[in-house]
Amino acid sequence: MDADYSSATVVGGGVIGISWAALFLAHGLRVTINDPRPDIESLVRAGLVEVAPTLSSLGLPTKDLTDMTGALRFEGELARAVADADVVQENGPEQADLKQKLWAQIEDAVPREALLLSSSSGIPASTIAQAMREPERLLIGHPFNPPHLVPLVEIVPGTLTDHKVVERAVAFYQALGKKPQVLNKEIPGFVANRLQSALFREAVYLVAQGVVTEQELDEVVTASIGMRWAVAGPFQTFHLGGGPGGLPDFLKHLGKQLEAAWKGLGKPSFDEPTVELLSEQANDFGGSVAELAADRDARQIALMRALGEMPVSVN
Amino acid sequence: MDADYSSATVVGGGVIGISWAALFLAHGLRVTINDPRPDIESLVRAGLVEVAPTLSSLGLPTKDLTDMTGALRFEGELARAVADADVVQENGPEQADLKQKLWAQIEDAVPREALLLSSSSGIPASTIAQAMREPERLLIGHPFNPPHLVPLVEIVPGTLTDHKVVERAVAFYQALGKKPQVLNKEIPGFVANRLQSALFREAVYLVAQGVVTEQELDEVVTASIGMRWAVAGPFQTFHLGGGPGGLPDFLKHLGKQLEAAWKGLGKPSFDEPTVELLSEQANDFGGSVAELAADRDARQIALMRALGEMPVSVN
Repeated sequence: MDADYSSATVVGGGVIGISWAALFLAHGLRVTINDPRPDIESLVRAGLVEVAPTLSSLGLPTKDLTDMTGALRFEGELARAVADADVVQENGPEQADLKQKLWAQIEDAVPREALLLSSSSGIPASTIAQAMREPERLLIGHPFNPPHLVPLVEIVPGTLTDHKVVERAVAFYQALGKKPQVLNKEIPGFVANRLQSALFREAVYLVAQGVVTEQELDEVVTASIGMRWAVAGPFQTFHLGGGPGGLPDFLKHLGKQLEAAWKGLGKPSFDEPTVELLSEQANDFGGSVAELAADRDARQIALMRALGEMPVSVN
Repeated sequence: MDADYSSATVVGGGVIGISWAALFLAHGLRVTINDPRPDIESLVRAGLVEVAPTLSSLGLPTKDLTDMTGALRFEGELARAVADADVVQENGPEQADLKQKLWAQIEDAVPREALLLSSSSGIPASTIAQAMREPERLLIGHPFNPPHLVPLVEIVPGTLTDHKVVERAVAFYQALGKKPQVLNKEIPGFVANRLQSALFREAVYLVAQGVVTEQELDEVVTASIGMRWAVAGPFQTFHLGGGPGGLPDFLKHLGKQLEAAWKGLGKPSFDEPTVELLSEQANDFGGSVAELAADRDARQIALMRALGEMPVSVN
């Protein structure tokens, strides 16, 4: 880890907070957890033990996750929790007023040079920073779940965010082995979740229509577009599908046809019969959530290793 | 390959036809190409040489693709081309009337027990088979491009297709190392292309809005949803994102929010400024289409090897 950072405060110790804490600890940072829940310490310690094997598979040390090394502390009072933080990663509830209050308080107590990051999955930094004296200090560092495993972090500056803060955030996440991507403009839901949501909408439609089951649709995806998009994104895929003329030729020949097909895409809703059908089919995944997740993560690590995309510790 | 199949006729020797021919030859089938173009033999032979290294990386023999072994022949007259075929894979133009005519002719000349497959990417078998005497013989075997590499084949029976034909098609494609998926209902565009189209629609919107560039969006996808969907499809992803309660809990807590977000998804069109922007950014992929495609395919093979998904020859 960069010498600029030795202590991180994780505000909110839920699933996302625990995952960030694990990643920070595995990269040698001291971590303070701020969360009002009385049982927070046992929750976080159990969570860290649970994700340690994955970080270990990624080639990172996990002693600070599993042993009482002193690298992890808990501080329920927010001002004290951030008082000596080099970086704050906030994972509070997705409510604008709550986040605004949190950040006004953090700003009052945190060192001047600390890097200020919100994990918000949809509320823009411009909104969250409205009660801050220096809104230029805040930006979104939105991970894709779970943060300790999936490389993407969407960095979304607010309209007032200082571009130097953006650069520092990129460097910080890169040092953690992540793949930060700066968005040029704020938009609700950012990029990854909007794309995911668009595909999922059609997925729900196709299952609701009885064309395929959930499991069959999943098989279709992993055996085609999933596998493709793991190695080349949707634009490059069509760029390479257009022959030597690439995407321009593709758009020329198939653009209008594609646009026409968009009009035929489904507009499902989560009405009772749809939720019932989807919930019922969810019994057929062939394992408990914990078992399936462990298998999925192992496969993803194998994939990352094959593609040379293991996170590299800067230590 | 199953003993039932020793000779395959590929109708239409374009990119898809060449890819099927390559896969069939690599699995020990004799292949007849039917295509009216006068230069078809040189086109196909050049295409086979081009894809041979990929099939070789997949662990398949490629002598019949690159050498004059006699396994490959060309027959411009359709009736003669299919006269002794055990399987016909048709890749004609995507026009219903043309495909109807082709299949009426094929039916008159092909042996009674031959397996009859159309690669159609959108026209349902019920439509294509309208001029056939025995429409129950035809079904769609729609590959995801390129067929010799991507595992998925969507099997889409028409309303009249015999279920025994469906079973035979599944077994045939499995013997080629593919992952056939039978759809329960005909729908324009089938499953994979509809899902791809839904995500691409939002991708075009985000680039047109200036939120990210094509290349940035591709990076977002490969570093998040692409990598996830290569190992677990969209339903399993949300099933595992819902905690121990799985997808039912996920839908209960986030369903309405997701449905609301759908309303905010983009509705872009391929108007002139959009096509211009997309075409201009396509200059920034950092390589020729051929170079990028070779790199992508090599990465995909590495991924398939890591996930234990190499096609296995039944020979």
